[in-house]
Amino acid sequence: MFITFILVAVNSGYADDGYRLWLKYDLISDVGLLKEYKNLIHASMVKGESATIQAARNELQIGLNGLLGSTILLVNNVNENGIVVAGSVKNIPLLQDADLISNVMKVGDEGFVISNLIVNRKKIIVITANQDIGVMYGVFHFLKLLQTHQDISTLNIVSSPKIKLRMQNHWDNLNGTRVYPGFSIWDWHTLPQYKKRRYIDYARANASVGINGLAPTNVNAEPLLMTQEFLGKVAALADVFRPYGIRMYLTANFDAPRKLSDIKTADPYDPQVKEWWKNKVNEIYSLIPDFGGFLVKANSEGEPGPQDYNKSQADGCNMLAEALSPYNGIVMWRCFVYDYNPKDRAREAYDIFKPLDGKFASNVVLQVKNGPLDFQPREPFSPLFGAMPNTPVIMELDLGPGALGHDIGLSYLAPMWEECFNSDTYAKGKGSTVAKVIDGTLDGYRITGIAGVSNINAESNWTGNTFGQSNWYAFGRLSWDHSITSEQIADEWIRMTFSNDTSIINPILKIMMASRENVVNYRDPLGLNMLGGWSVYHGPWVNNSTHGDWNSPYYHRADSIGIGFDRTRSGSAAVDQYYPPVAQQYESLSTCPEKDLLWFHHVPWTYKMKSGKTLWDELCYHYYKGVEGVEDIQKIWSSLKGKVEEDEFDREQALLKIQHADAITWRDGCVLYFQTFSRLPIPTELKAPERELQYYIIHNPM
Amino acid sequence: MFITFILVAVNSGYADDGYRLWLKYDLISDVGLLKEYKNLIHASMVKGESATIQAARNELQIGLNGLLGSTILLVNNVNENGIVVAGSVKNIPLLQDADLISNVMKVGDEGFVISNLIVNRKKIIVITANQDIGVMYGVFHFLKLLQTHQDISTLNIVSSPKIKLRMQNHWDNLNGTRVYPGFSIWDWHTLPQYKKRRYIDYARANASVGINGLAPTNVNAEPLLMTQEFLGKVAALADVFRPYGIRMYLTANFDAPRKLSDIKTADPYDPQVKEWWKNKVNEIYSLIPDFGGFLVKANSEGEPGPQDYNKSQADGCNMLAEALSPYNGIVMWRCFVYDYNPKDRAREAYDIFKPLDGKFASNVVLQVKNGPLDFQPREPFSPLFGAMPNTPVIMELDLGPGALGHDIGLSYLAPMWEECFNSDTYAKGKGSTVAKVIDGTLDGYRITGIAGVSNINAESNWTGNTFGQSNWYAFGRLSWDHSITSEQIADEWIRMTFSNDTSIINPILKIMMASRENVVNYRDPLGLNMLGGWSVYHGPWVNNSTHGDWNSPYYHRADSIGIGFDRTRSGSAAVDQYYPPVAQQYESLSTCPEKDLLWFHHVPWTYKMKSGKTLWDELCYHYYKGVEGVEDIQKIWSSLKGKVEEDEFDREQALLKIQHADAITWRDGCVLYFQTFSRLPIPTELKAPERELQYYIIHNPM
Repeated sequence: MFITFILVAVNSGYADDGYRLWLKYDLISDVGLLKEYKNLIHASMVKGESATIQAARNELQIGLNGLLGSTILLVNNVNENGIVVAGSVKNIPLLQDADLISNVMKVGDEGFVISNLIVNRKKIIVITANQDIGVMYGVFHFLKLLQTHQDISTLNIVSSPKIKLRMQNHWDNLNGTRVYPGFSIWDWHTLPQYKKRRYIDYARANASVGINGLAPTNVNAEPLLMTQEFLGKVAALADVFRPYGIRMYLTANFDAPRKLSDIKTADPYDPQVKEWWKNKVNEIYSLIPDFGGFLVKANSEGEPGPQDYNKSQADGCNMLAEALSPYNGIVMWRCFVYDYNPKDRAREAYDIFKPLDGKFASNVVLQVKNGPLDFQPREPFSPLFGAMPNTPVIMELDLGPGALGHDIGLSYLAPMWEECFNSDTYAKGKGSTVAKVIDGTLDGYRITGIAGVSNINAESNWTGNTFGQSNWYAFGRLSWDHSITSEQIADEWIRMTFSNDTSIINPILKIMMASRENVVNYRDPLGLNMLGGWSVYHGPWVNNSTHGDWNSPYYHRADSIGIGFDRTRSGSAAVDQYYPPVAQQYESLSTCPEKDLLWFHHVPWTYKMKSGKTLWDELCYHYYKGVEGVEDIQKIWSSLKGKVEEDEFDREQALLKIQHADAITWRDGCVLYFQTFSRLPIPTELKAPERELQYYIIHNPM
Repeated sequence: MFITFILVAVNSGYADDGYRLWLKYDLISDVGLLKEYKNLIHASMVKGESATIQAARNELQIGLNGLLGSTILLVNNVNENGIVVAGSVKNIPLLQDADLISNVMKVGDEGFVISNLIVNRKKIIVITANQDIGVMYGVFHFLKLLQTHQDISTLNIVSSPKIKLRMQNHWDNLNGTRVYPGFSIWDWHTLPQYKKRRYIDYARANASVGINGLAPTNVNAEPLLMTQEFLGKVAALADVFRPYGIRMYLTANFDAPRKLSDIKTADPYDPQVKEWWKNKVNEIYSLIPDFGGFLVKANSEGEPGPQDYNKSQADGCNMLAEALSPYNGIVMWRCFVYDYNPKDRAREAYDIFKPLDGKFASNVVLQVKNGPLDFQPREPFSPLFGAMPNTPVIMELDLGPGALGHDIGLSYLAPMWEECFNSDTYAKGKGSTVAKVIDGTLDGYRITGIAGVSNINAESNWTGNTFGQSNWYAFGRLSWDHSITSEQIADEWIRMTFSNDTSIINPILKIMMASRENVVNYRDPLGLNMLGGWSVYHGPWVNNSTHGDWNSPYYHRADSIGIGFDRTRSGSAAVDQYYPPVAQQYESLSTCPEKDLLWFHHVPWTYKMKSGKTLWDELCYHYYKGVEGVEDIQKIWSSLKGKVEEDEFDREQALLKIQHADAITWRDGCVLYFQTFSRLPIPTELKAPERELQYYIIHNPM
C-alpha cells in the first residue's frame, strides 16, 4: 500500500518536485539503521509555549513521524527510555547534568546542545539551549543527523554560530520581477491578507540552516516600499518569520522623503529629512517591533544617496543610524560604490570607504562583496577585509545565479566562499584570515554578519536548477560555522537531498566539487573577469557603453602585446590596498598566483607559465578544460539514470545540455576574440571552434 | 501506515497545493462504493502503440491505481471479468457488438463510446473510439465517473464534441510576464532543451476537458516569436502536447517581415512580403508538421495591420491564409478592432467586419468576443453572432482574471457563458441561439471554434484562486458540449476538486452559482460597463485619456438627468446591429431587460423600475447587494472550516477578504461618484459609505 501510494503520487503530478528542499523526512531506507533509531526514539517531549517552540515541536513531530515511518507520540513526562526531550534550559528543570549545564552556558542566545543523557533512570536524548530559537536550531540539527544516517547513541554536540547576522538579501522588485532569473516568491498583491504556505516553508528552510535575517526586496530600492500600505504587507511577512528567528530588514531608497512627502530634499543634514526618517522608523517599529534595520545602496549605479547633496557616505549612513538607534536597529551600508570611468574600478570601494573607518555610528555595518569587483567566478578577496578595524565589515556573497550563468548552470559555490574565507589579509600578521575579520575575532567587531544575495525564486523547486539549493544550504551552514569544509557541506546536502547511498553520493560530490572551477575555466581563467557585455551575458568584445567600466576591454586590456589589467605599482597600484605581504605577492609576476595573474598583471602572450606553456596556450587550455569539465559532469550525471528521481534526472540533464552550449559559447567566443590580439594559433591538440567569431559578436552585440 | 504517510506529507510542505487540479486520483473514500468499483474493475487493457495511447494507458493506470488504492494490472487478453478495455476500434477487433459499432460510427474523430459489454463471456467495460485521441478523451471521462462516484455498471455513453476547435489563448509575453496577473508557465529560456514536467501536466489537464488547441503567447505578438530560435522552442512544446491531441497555433505580428528581414514593408499586397510569410510558414511546418495556424490581432490598440497600408482586414488576413493553405493551416483573425474616439465603440467590430462577410479565404475564422466591448462582467451578446453566415465566426471568452478582478476574486464564469450561448440572435427566426452559431448548425460553418483567454499562470495551483480552476474546467466542458448546464459542471468540478460529500458540495455550489452575479452587482449593475480607469482597476471618474473611449464617462454618460449610453435609434442606433426582434426588444425602454438597461438607454435617475423603485435607488440596492453577496459567500466558506484542506481554507478566506474590500471600493466609489450627478440620497436602509469620494479618486486617479 505504502509503495503504491508513492508511485501513484509521483506519477500523477504530485511528484517530489523539489519543493521540500533538503527537508525531506522520508522513511529511513536502511532497515537496520531504522531499527536502531526506533530503539533510541520512542516519543518526544517539547517544552515551552512560545510560537518558536510550537514550530519546533511541529517540525520534530513531522520529521520523526516521516523518518521513522510511524507516529512518534508526544509525551509529558520522562517515564520511559527513548524520549527526545527538547526545550530551553529554563523550561526543562529536570536537566541537572553538570556537563550539560556548562555546555549550554557556552552557546549563547542561538546555540544549542544535543546529548544522550540518563534522567530519572531513563535513557533520553536532550536538545536544549538558552533560548527557544536555539532549541529550534537544535531540532533541525537533530533531524539532520537522522536524515544523514549518523550515529545518535553517543551524542555530545555543542554548537553556536560564529557570525551573528546571517542574512538573505532578495533582489526582488515589488512587481514580482527580479534582478536575477525567475520571479519573486513574494506576492505583494495579496499581502497582508494572504500569507502563503510557501512563506512558512521558506522560513523553515532558512531556520534549518541558521539564517536569521531577511531583506525581501531589491537594493535598488523602490520608495513605494516605505508607504503605509507596503509596510503593512511587510509586517504580515515579519509575523510569519518571527517564530523561526528571522528578523525583517528593509532596503531603503535614500530619496524616499523627497518621493513620498512634500519635502524638497533628501539631504541628510536637513532637519525635515531627519524628522521624516525618525517618524518613518517609529512607524515601522510600531508595526514590526523586532525590525532589524535598513540595507542601503546609495550613490551607486544611479541610486540616490548623500553625495547628491555633497555629503559623505558616512553622513548619509549615520543619519539613518540615528533614526534607528532608539530601537537598536542597524544600518547595513553597502560599499558597492564606484564612479563611472574610474582609473581602476577595483580600487573604488577601498578608496572611498577606507578613509571613513571609525566615522560611522555604532549601529552601522558596512556590507562588502567578497571581491573588489562584482560577483565574478573568481576574484581575489576585497582589500577592505582587514582594513576597517574601527567599523564592522560584513560580507556579501552571491548565492549563484547572477554573474554565474542564470539559474541554469550547475555551480556549487561553497568552494569559492571557502577560498575567500581562508584568504590571509595579514592585517595583524600571518593568520589574519578573512574569516577572522568576518567573525569579528580579528578586530573585536561588536556586530558580525554575512549576507547572501538570494537565488530563490518562484519555481516550484525554489532555485530552477536543484543544485542551486545546495548554495542556499551551504551559505547557511558556512554562515553558522565557516570551519566546516565545502566538501563536508556538500556531503550533508547530497544525503538530505538525494540519498545516503554512496554510489549516489560519490558521483554527485565529484560533480559539485568540480563545478565552480569549470565555470572559472570556461569564462574567466587566470584572473580574467567582467567579460560579459552590459546588456548581454557573453561579450568580451563589448565596448560601446558610455560608462567605460561597463565595457569588457576596460577589464581585460587585451592588445597586441598581451592581456590583463596592470594593478601593480607601475599600473593602478591596487596591490597596495592590501597589507604588505599580500601586496608583495601580487606585485611580483613570479609570485602572483597564476589563478589571479591577469587580475594584477598585463602579461605578454608569449610569457612562459609554470607549466612551460606560453600564456596564450595556457589560456586556450584553460578555456577548453572548462568545457571538458562540463562534459565530465554530463557523463557522471548520465550514470545516475535510474538512481535519482526521473523528473529530476531529466531536468538536470537538460540544464547541463544548456550549460554545455553556454560553455562552448564562452570558450569559442573568448578564444577567437583574444586571438585577434595574440595572432597566435590555437594549440593543434585542441579542436578548432566550429563557428566564426562574427557569429558570437552578432548574437551578443552590447 | 498509509494514513501516517499522508499526514506527514501534508505537514511537511508536501501538501496538495492545488497543482493536481481536478485530476486527483485519491482513494475512493466511500467504502461501499470502493468495493463495488473493485468488483467491476480488476485489470485494464489498453490497445495501440501511438504516443497518444501510451499517454492514455498511463493515465488509466495512474487513475485506477490511485482511486482504487491497489495496483490494477495491465493485461493482454480478456480472460476474466472486470477488465477495462480501451483502444480505437481498429485496435480492438474483438469488439463486434453491433450497437457499439454503430455508436462509434457517430462520434467522429474525437468522440468516444463507453459501455459495459460481455466479450468472450466476460463482463468488461469498453472505452473505444475511431481515433486514439478519442480513446484518451474516453479514458479521462471514465476516470471522472469514478472520481464523481457515478454508477459504472450500466454505462452507455456516446460523446463527441459539438465544437471543433477548442482553444487556449495565453496572453503571455516572451519575458515571462503576462497581460493578466501572475507569470507565464512557459520558460522560454530553458526551451527547447528542458521540457518541464509542468508542460505535460498542463497538457493532461487540457486533454481531460477536451481542449485541443493552444496559442502560447500574447495576441500583442512579439516578432521575436517568429525567429528560428523561438520556433525551435515552440516546436519542443508542440512535441510535448501532440500526444494529448493539442495543436500549436502562434500569435503573428503583422509587421514581422519588416522587423525580421530587410523588407521595408509589411503590405499584404507586396510580393516580397507574401514570399516572406510563405517561407516562414514552410519553416514552421518543417518544425511542427501539425501546426494549426496563426492567431492575429491587427490594427487594434496599436498593433500593426493591413490598414497601415490602406488594405482591408480581409486583405491582410487572406494573405496569411494563402501562405497557410497548402498545409491546411488556418488564420484566426480577431474582430477586436476599433478606432479611437468612435461615436460608439460597441458598434465598431460589427461596422468593420459585417461588410466583409464572405470576403475571407476558406481557411479563415473570425474570432469574436462574447460581448461587443471587452470582457465585462455582463454584456449583451455580440451582434456579429448570426450576422456572418458566410464566414465562420468563433467565440473568444475570458477565463476570468482580466476584467473581472485579478486572480483574486471568486467568480465562476460558466453562468455568464451559458447566458451568452443561450441568447437568441433570431438570425434565422426564433431559436437561432448564439450556441447554434458557434457550433455551426445555424449557418453550416465548415470550421467551428471557441477560444478561452487563459487564466493559467505559474502559481503552484495554476490560477491563484483555486476557483479559477473551475473556469478552466468549465470552459473545456462547455466547449465540448454547450448543452451541459453551468450548475452540472460546477457539481462535477467540486466533486473532483473538493469532495463527493454533499455537505461540502452544496455550500460550494451555492457559492459558485452566486459568484458572478455578485461581481455584476458590485461593479456594473443594470447594464453599466467599462468603469475601470485606463491604468487603474477602479475608476468611473477617470476621464483623462486622450483616447475618448478609454475613459469611463464615455460609457456611463452620467449627467444631471440620468445615466446610461443611448444605443437606441435616437442614439448610436447600435440596437439595429441585431436582428429585428432583438433590436425591437432592446430599443424600447419597457421591453429592454433591466440587466441590460443602461447599456442601451440613457435613463432618468427618477425613472420607475419594475420593482417600483427609482433607477437611482435600484442602482444603489444593486451595488449594496453585490457586497452583501460577497459577505454571504464569506459566511458559507467559513462554515467549511475543517471540511476542506486547511491551507486551501486559509487561502480562500484570505482572498475573500481582499475581494470583500474590493467590492466595497467598487460600491462606494461608484455610488458616491454617481451621486454627484443624481444629487439624490442613498436610501436610508443602506449603510452610508465610510469614506469620502475623494479618497477613492485619489487612490485611482487615471
